[in-house]
Amino acid sequence: MDATMMGSMKDAMPGMATMDMSLMQACMDACSACEQACTVCSTQMMSCAPACMNCADMCNTMMRAMMRMQGMTPAAMMAMLDACIAMCQVCMDACMEHAEHSEVCRMCAAACKACMDACMTVRSAMATA
Amino acid sequence: MDATMMGSMKDAMPGMATMDMSLMQACMDACSACEQACTVCSTQMMSCAPACMNCADMCNTMMRAMMRMQGMTPAAMMAMLDACIAMCQVCMDACMEHAEHSEVCRMCAAACKACMDACMTVRSAMATA
Amino acid sequence: MDATMMGSMKDAMPGMATMDMSLMQACMDACSACEQACTVCSTQMMSCAPACMNCADMCNTMMRAMMRMQGMTPAAMMAMLDACIAMCQVCMDACMEHAEHSEVCRMCAAACKACMDACMTVRSAMATA
Amino acid sequence: MDATMMGSMKDAMPGMATMDMSLMQACMDACSACEQACTVCSTQMMSCAPACMNCADMCNTMMRAMMRMQGMTPAAMMAMLDACIAMCQVCMDACMEHAEHSEVCRMCAAACKACMDACMTVRSAMATA
Repeated sequence: MDATMMGSMKDAMPGMATMDMSLMQACMDACSACEQACTVCSTQMMSCAPACMNCADMCNTMMRAMMRMQGMTPAAMMAMLDACIAMCQVCMDACMEHAEHSEVCRMCAAACKACMDACMTVRSAMATA
Repeated sequence: MDATMMGSMKDAMPGMATMDMSLMQACMDACSACEQACTVCSTQMMSCAPACMNCADMCNTMMRAMMRMQGMTPAAMMAMLDACIAMCQVCMDACMEHAEHSEVCRMCAAACKACMDACMTVRSAMATA
Repeated sequence: MDATMMGSMKDAMPGMATMDMSLMQACMDACSACEQACTVCSTQMMSCAPACMNCADMCNTMMRAMMRMQGMTPAAMMAMLDACIAMCQVCMDACMEHAEHSEVCRMCAAACKACMDACMTVRSAMATA
Repeated sequence: MDATMMGSMKDAMPGMATMDMSLMQACMDACSACEQACTVCSTQMMSCAPACMNCADMCNTMMRAMMRMQGMTPAAMMAMLDACIAMCQVCMDACMEHAEHSEVCRMCAAACKACMDACMTVRSAMATA
């Protein structure tokens, strides 16, 4: 995401003016990476696949919502972040069950972990804003 | 959704065996209707559009997750329902601001309200299961 | 989709003024039904699953595009319809391979067939408009 | 996308064994970048917004399909690429109309152009495979 695009998002949501946009940027990137890893992982036909599909959709929805903060409130943003964190946790747990046997699952679990962490960081920054 | 398809979803998630599937069905239908209303409403270029787009994506993600309960946990389901309820609230509020001037906004707000109610009903049924 | 909402879509795309909106409505409904059938079918972990996921996404994108004709041209609409028809064909063929063993696959294949037919009907109506 | 993940996609579709995976990788990246640019651009409430929303959805569907080649055929892939190219063209044209007044539109048009080019490159590689 270019700085100009990021700038156009800045101040889009009331109460977000003091948000460090680099945290938002990192979170959107983590959501995108997680969606992609989950999409690939879901094609393996392993038991994690439904969780991967759920996680891919939630991460895409989360990423897009961060790009459309004009249509968000802090309360809805918090709830979406919680849902994304919860969904990444489910997917990570499902993939870790066969991480020993599948390199793709191991990478998917890592992408879920990174996305959870990025969402938690944004959540913390919002809570203290 | 056909009864056979609903049957294939039944018991898919641990702890959901006692769930009244008709509540789930009604919720999926409400999510689908809300996604469609929000998508049409977002093309009006009114101030509600970003909220409508966010709500359309969240409702689609919610509907799909209910169809893939094998990849859900009760905790993630609760968090997703809360996020969908919160997003529908934001969109309904945004559309109600010009409901007097736009029949489409009025209908979109009604679809958001119906989706919120259906999600709350599923949430209550889960909490008492 | 309500008549008021349909009316707001009418005339949205240049060259669509003579389109029979009931054909568009039937096609959007068929896309929605196909997305849902494919989403359920994809959780069965059978060989059709990747095709079902692809088809679910394409049908959702097709449905939404029909609701946002202001952002379409006849040429793009034709190309999208062709892509949706092709994707439904792939999914139907994949599901028919085990239709004898899975009622869900049989129903998914039927939903794909209905969506293909509805897209072809819209395509024909556009070509003669 | 990691090399391991790319490897898991390799040979997934009959007739794709000779495909240069770096072209696929570049195309998926261009789809992802285009979806993001279109999503941001659509929040500006300018006349390009419906085209941007359509393009964002098509690019996401295209990207995911490339990650799930097990559920594709060469014919469906060609049709999807044509649809993505057509949709990017529509969005680029719509954004170019006010590229002088909006830096975001200018960047969105550039992302559409890059996505079109990447899709055409994959299409050419498939046609000669």
